[in-house]
Amino acid sequence: MKEALRQFIDSFQFLTPEEVDIIVDNTVLKFTKKGEYLLKEGEVSKECFAVIKGCIREFVIKDGVEKTVSFFTEGDPITAFTSEITGCQSKSYIQCLEDCVVTVGNDSLIDEMIQRIPRLEKLIRVEVEKEAGKMQDRMSDFMISTPEERFVTLINNQPNLIHRVPQVLIASYIGVTPESYSRIKKRVFEKIKQHN
Amino acid sequence: MKEALRQFIDSFQFLTPEEVDIIVDNTVLKFTKKGEYLLKEGEVSKECFAVIKGCIREFVIKDGVEKTVSFFTEGDPITAFTSEITGCQSKSYIQCLEDCVVTVGNDSLIDEMIQRIPRLEKLIRVEVEKEAGKMQDRMSDFMISTPEERFVTLINNQPNLIHRVPQVLIASYIGVTPESYSRIKKRVFEKIKQHN
Repeated sequence: MKEALRQFIDSFQFLTPEEVDIIVDNTVLKFTKKGEYLLKEGEVSKECFAVIKGCIREFVIKDGVEKTVSFFTEGDPITAFTSEITGCQSKSYIQCLEDCVVTVGNDSLIDEMIQRIPRLEKLIRVEVEKEAGKMQDRMSDFMISTPEERFVTLINNQPNLIHRVPQVLIASYIGVTPESYSRIKKRVFEKIKQHN
Repeated sequence: MKEALRQFIDSFQFLTPEEVDIIVDNTVLKFTKKGEYLLKEGEVSKECFAVIKGCIREFVIKDGVEKTVSFFTEGDPITAFTSEITGCQSKSYIQCLEDCVVTVGNDSLIDEMIQRIPRLEKLIRVEVEKEAGKMQDRMSDFMISTPEERFVTLINNQPNLIHRVPQVLIASYIGVTPESYSRIKKRVFEKIKQHN
């Protein structure tokens, strides 16, 4: 698993081999079972994660119903920014949909790494800006899209998800009932077949 | 207007009076007219802004129709993160809905400020993380909400908006036709009246 971690850290192309070593040696890995939670509603988030192996979802319970708002797979960072920065309670759950391996970071570890590799401060800022950009794009894309368009975006951006997660969660994510989702999925796959 | 700018910079409570002076002296202000654009679809964003005075919206054109995805008022930062960081073309328009005053920043100005006030690097990172948190919260909130709930969130978070922007833009923002919006607005205001 250290090798997968090294590959992940190495994917940030601005790091020298020595810097990659320092980070890999200091990264804590967490092995979780399917169904386990990394964060629950009401808890204050003190850690941030990145997925090395596995699939994780974020959901909110509204009127007793689970609504899936995000999926995370290999390479994705997971941070509950507001809870972690302001210390307020999380409104959402983060749950493993498979047995997973994640890196676990926290403020003091990040501060320590920055002390050893000062230019990491700027590099982390740029990574957070990229994440903010992805969220911004996802938000405006979601706002202007129909459920069918959201489904097409999902299979374009995270094509392996559809085979990894229960279909009812994808329905919840694009904001339709499981029945509507079945119709949408059929229609989209028929269009894809016609194009190929 | 320098006084409004000083108040804005001063609202970041971690800065000393001397640091506020340095930033105020180096901040460029831009005065724009109602209808003017800060960014258009297809352009590469090289600047970031913060609203000192006025109201600004972000919108996307989809199938020939304008869809409003964000409103910004006094104190709000405006950054097209993805375009600015990756250099790709903006997918959205940023347009002033009133005569506005905004601060204008860019990478080299930020680098210069950090060179003069090194701890600004971390402080900016934390501010970007807060922004990312707001976007994350807004995204999951939007995903699980009905148009009526979105309207209630809007009047709770940005209460002055409803009197400042054309109602058709608010309808577009919460994702309904102007007709449905009229009904939603009436219903929500009746409920508020009953509660008071």
